[in-house]
Amino acid sequence: MQFLSDNAAPVHPKVWEAMQAADNPDTPYDTDALSREMDARFSALFGRECAALWVATGTAANCLALATMVEPHGGVICHREAHIEMDECGAPGFYLHGAKLLLAAGEGAKLTPADIDAVLAGITRGVHQVPAHAISITQASEYGLPYRPEELAAIGAMAKEHNLGLHMDGARFANAVAALGGPAVEVAGPVDALSFGFVKNGGMGAEAVILFDTEKAELVRWRRKRAGHLQSKGRYLAAQILAMLDDEIWLQNARAANDAAKIIADEAGDRLVHPQQINELFVRMTAGERAALRDQGFAFYDWDETCVRLVTHWASRHEDSEKLGKAIAAL
Amino acid sequence: MQFLSDNAAPVHPKVWEAMQAADNPDTPYDTDALSREMDARFSALFGRECAALWVATGTAANCLALATMVEPHGGVICHREAHIEMDECGAPGFYLHGAKLLLAAGEGAKLTPADIDAVLAGITRGVHQVPAHAISITQASEYGLPYRPEELAAIGAMAKEHNLGLHMDGARFANAVAALGGPAVEVAGPVDALSFGFVKNGGMGAEAVILFDTEKAELVRWRRKRAGHLQSKGRYLAAQILAMLDDEIWLQNARAANDAAKIIADEAGDRLVHPQQINELFVRMTAGERAALRDQGFAFYDWDETCVRLVTHWASRHEDSEKLGKAIAAL
Amino acid sequence: MQFLSDNAAPVHPKVWEAMQAADNPDTPYDTDALSREMDARFSALFGRECAALWVATGTAANCLALATMVEPHGGVICHREAHIEMDECGAPGFYLHGAKLLLAAGEGAKLTPADIDAVLAGITRGVHQVPAHAISITQASEYGLPYRPEELAAIGAMAKEHNLGLHMDGARFANAVAALGGPAVEVAGPVDALSFGFVKNGGMGAEAVILFDTEKAELVRWRRKRAGHLQSKGRYLAAQILAMLDDEIWLQNARAANDAAKIIADEAGDRLVHPQQINELFVRMTAGERAALRDQGFAFYDWDETCVRLVTHWASRHEDSEKLGKAIAAL
Amino acid sequence: MQFLSDNAAPVHPKVWEAMQAADNPDTPYDTDALSREMDARFSALFGRECAALWVATGTAANCLALATMVEPHGGVICHREAHIEMDECGAPGFYLHGAKLLLAAGEGAKLTPADIDAVLAGITRGVHQVPAHAISITQASEYGLPYRPEELAAIGAMAKEHNLGLHMDGARFANAVAALGGPAVEVAGPVDALSFGFVKNGGMGAEAVILFDTEKAELVRWRRKRAGHLQSKGRYLAAQILAMLDDEIWLQNARAANDAAKIIADEAGDRLVHPQQINELFVRMTAGERAALRDQGFAFYDWDETCVRLVTHWASRHEDSEKLGKAIAAL
Repeated sequence: MQFLSDNAAPVHPKVWEAMQAADNPDTPYDTDALSREMDARFSALFGRECAALWVATGTAANCLALATMVEPHGGVICHREAHIEMDECGAPGFYLHGAKLLLAAGEGAKLTPADIDAVLAGITRGVHQVPAHAISITQASEYGLPYRPEELAAIGAMAKEHNLGLHMDGARFANAVAALGGPAVEVAGPVDALSFGFVKNGGMGAEAVILFDTEKAELVRWRRKRAGHLQSKGRYLAAQILAMLDDEIWLQNARAANDAAKIIADEAGDRLVHPQQINELFVRMTAGERAALRDQGFAFYDWDETCVRLVTHWASRHEDSEKLGKAIAAL
Repeated sequence: MQFLSDNAAPVHPKVWEAMQAADNPDTPYDTDALSREMDARFSALFGRECAALWVATGTAANCLALATMVEPHGGVICHREAHIEMDECGAPGFYLHGAKLLLAAGEGAKLTPADIDAVLAGITRGVHQVPAHAISITQASEYGLPYRPEELAAIGAMAKEHNLGLHMDGARFANAVAALGGPAVEVAGPVDALSFGFVKNGGMGAEAVILFDTEKAELVRWRRKRAGHLQSKGRYLAAQILAMLDDEIWLQNARAANDAAKIIADEAGDRLVHPQQINELFVRMTAGERAALRDQGFAFYDWDETCVRLVTHWASRHEDSEKLGKAIAAL
Repeated sequence: MQFLSDNAAPVHPKVWEAMQAADNPDTPYDTDALSREMDARFSALFGRECAALWVATGTAANCLALATMVEPHGGVICHREAHIEMDECGAPGFYLHGAKLLLAAGEGAKLTPADIDAVLAGITRGVHQVPAHAISITQASEYGLPYRPEELAAIGAMAKEHNLGLHMDGARFANAVAALGGPAVEVAGPVDALSFGFVKNGGMGAEAVILFDTEKAELVRWRRKRAGHLQSKGRYLAAQILAMLDDEIWLQNARAANDAAKIIADEAGDRLVHPQQINELFVRMTAGERAALRDQGFAFYDWDETCVRLVTHWASRHEDSEKLGKAIAAL
Repeated sequence: MQFLSDNAAPVHPKVWEAMQAADNPDTPYDTDALSREMDARFSALFGRECAALWVATGTAANCLALATMVEPHGGVICHREAHIEMDECGAPGFYLHGAKLLLAAGEGAKLTPADIDAVLAGITRGVHQVPAHAISITQASEYGLPYRPEELAAIGAMAKEHNLGLHMDGARFANAVAALGGPAVEVAGPVDALSFGFVKNGGMGAEAVILFDTEKAELVRWRRKRAGHLQSKGRYLAAQILAMLDDEIWLQNARAANDAAKIIADEAGDRLVHPQQINELFVRMTAGERAALRDQGFAFYDWDETCVRLVTHWASRHEDSEKLGKAIAAL
């Protein structure tokens, strides 16, 4: 039973269907009918005008979004455990031409205005130091904690005050929406650009870069091509994303993933490092306990010496969660 | 009837099958069973050891391959109509961190040792000028002309003499193999790295970077991740490529595409700018003649004022080619 | 007798004096009194507001100026024999993060609107091709030919129409002003940024980046620091430049250099590839003739198989020019 | 009385003399007689073969040196208060094309093997994380503390074990040599490349990049040109450096600067954050005490809330140091 990563999830049947329905000649790159539908569909979803472009990976989505806000000599304030810092092999440095990540602390990998302020307060040497050009936050955070609308508003106000762009890494944006229960527009808050993840949530290889300043789409189009991310058969990417928007599959899948995690969380009790909110759990466990669970057939990721990470996904079976929950309770 | 681009072709049924067979949990990125099979399968195909990595696009494949040969302060000798120069929005400049394309002339967009020598002869100012670090050729060329083994050998000798890397853009490598009739290893010749195209030939979104110096694979792995091209569900890309290698579908498809072009070529006669060899034809045509064909339902690309480009693909119907051939003959 | 390069010229006595006068403690980088005087002094010279920053080399000046106009995915239209293309080892690719030089033809290494238009006409493939973001011209050109005000106006109109930045490489801007006789502002014309050269004209290691859009100075300040060009003892650079502005030494020196070239030109007659205008001459000469001159003690640069390049400078002695002129006439 | 920075020091008379002696035509860039002397002079100084190239600034020297060791996708382990991290406006990110600084802790801004190990231990995610390619240390450290030979040997062993390049930022290398009393070669230790500072120590605008692997000089030559740091009148930079090597002026000046600091340190007693070793002192002081000193005419830099930084230089007058020492003692 696999609780390693939501990347391991299969592709949703409706996504398969949509891809196969796209399997007829259309114009290449992003000039096909499906790709051209993206802007309108996401504008409808968010209830405000936006531009939406597909790319294959979250790393590309994050970096292309940041490229609309950050000059090569600038910096991006982010949490020191943010995915862009820890897991993207320096991709922001590549896409932003040497721009720097300016690392902030923050409980549960979430930033507060105070955390951001601490970084800004250290930038005092004028032209000798990298200036901040943007803030990047992760919704939900690397520890599975969503930002609530009022938290986003406070960060947005700060970005505005300091003339900083605001980016949201939404690899698990859908899970955050499901957890918070609010409309997508509230869960995005005042961000300028959002990487909206679909791959972990039932897609195959398509994420969306959402730009609430639609004039920035032009830049992303050039940079996407230049990064080799403008696929010639882009219709298959658009198909995946649009299929997930139909009938709110993106939201249903996220709810299913969150629910599967909740079953485990309910049994894990005090072992939880953070209260369960989405489909990620960080559970305190000794080496011996980990071994015991693995002996029972559970696969998961050793986060650090104190805890393991458990991740469920849209296709996780509730009975597997129950088994794991019980096994943890029985430790 | 569509003769615009082989990018418009559908995905081959066996590719669909393989992708769906991959639709079960496996480890992410390129650690799954299929991705790990790539090296061995391509080593078998070429009859020599090589490393093979999937990426989504030809642009990414070309640039990652070149990154194994070219330092940021260096240059790549290529034809002035090469895809990397004309159609990739400066991607080589991005991936190679400002390295320069050093443009050569050459009949039919093919380079000869003399063409390469003319570029090298112009580099005389020592540290004041960008030095050549590599040569990039396209198999088959932008005008649909394959390099024959002896032509490749001559270029390879030159690369060796001048200590230059040798890269082959093989977006239509399969068509070149089909046209030349030789084994893949001969059609690759003495290149250090090959971008082996599958997307135009029945794939969906997977190309292979082939490295004949397997020690370079390490570098490409880092750079692929850093460019956001390490897809988390990489198994679906590996599945596409491996399916095309099974039963030589890549070669069958290429033959079918070439044959479909030959039907047209046989009727086009003196209008052909270059003799037909693969699935691309450049056909001299007046504006009036183009309009007449379009009125009959044929879609194609205006190459320049003298000629149009016609492209067939693996799924092109022979009857459509016949119709187009006859229509051209009747002009 | 040395006619190789104006780079070989000594430093003007007034420049030495000014540097030594600066040899007392002041605040570092560009916060000293002299550096802070630059903006006002150049604004007075040009009769319009501008920002002026020192850097050590023309390459740095050109690239920093271009960085105010060109995004990493963009291109710079320039002559195919421009210094930024031929002699800067790809520095624009480095400073502009992979942006591309888009090469134009043009008689005497000068661009006309028609030359520029020919480049623009070739950019037709949308996101697949590098878009032009700027034009760079050289005043005077690599063949020693100044642009006249009406020529500059025509290029400026074109830049405006196509929303392109306009940069002027003024390595020999002073010589162009001396040749045209007009005020500096007319010789700069409608450019957005000018690299104003002092090193070849009596300075030691200081050039000025002039920004007619003063809001761009901020960007150049960051980029200069980031490129390691913000010298901690910047006062010695400012001193050089300000000394050259005093009593119009920059203009006197340029006139002296031009005059020294004219003496030779008057004897060279039909051998001149272009009419003499500044301090560079391109003189047709056989290999035997070159050898004969060298035997007489003249040093110069072999430009190509048809001609040599002769360069005079502010300290060139008229008697040496006369000797060379007579020697050429006697060939 | 100025204790702000050694950047504010005047140029040494012997340096002026040498620059003026260089004021006659020679070949440009680094082909002149003085520039060609650099390798031999530094090889003699270090008693081992090395290549030595001039550049105008320490930032350029550091970045060009690091470029011989670090690929664009790699990282440099350095102290979190290192100059390359805090004061160079992201120049390493620019010169190394997006490579990352991997920040280590360390008492007094010095790294120990344990500090380096802590960084390496955090790099566990394979291709998802930036790999370390080099270590950069500062001799003497940002807090004025030299590394002793045995400390360097331990770091060198670690670099070797992990196949990392080792770079030394020697902005105050001379002061470290003066403090340790050893020969230069011991104070450099097992580093691969050294930025040897002259500007703070009596030069005007010339630092040396020293490469103990002389084969790397080729790369630095290209990169220096490409960064706009190959000055056309390079002889004036070489002259500065060679003059400082003559009669060990570099060492005499460093001793004088250190001595001037010692006079103050002897009075500052327990206020010193670190024991005095070179020409930098960090002295605990309240806001009121700072104001009191400034009222007496002393200028210095507020390091942080707990202490100020005092810097002496080769031309600091002993009587000024005595006055400041007494003033501190009297607080």
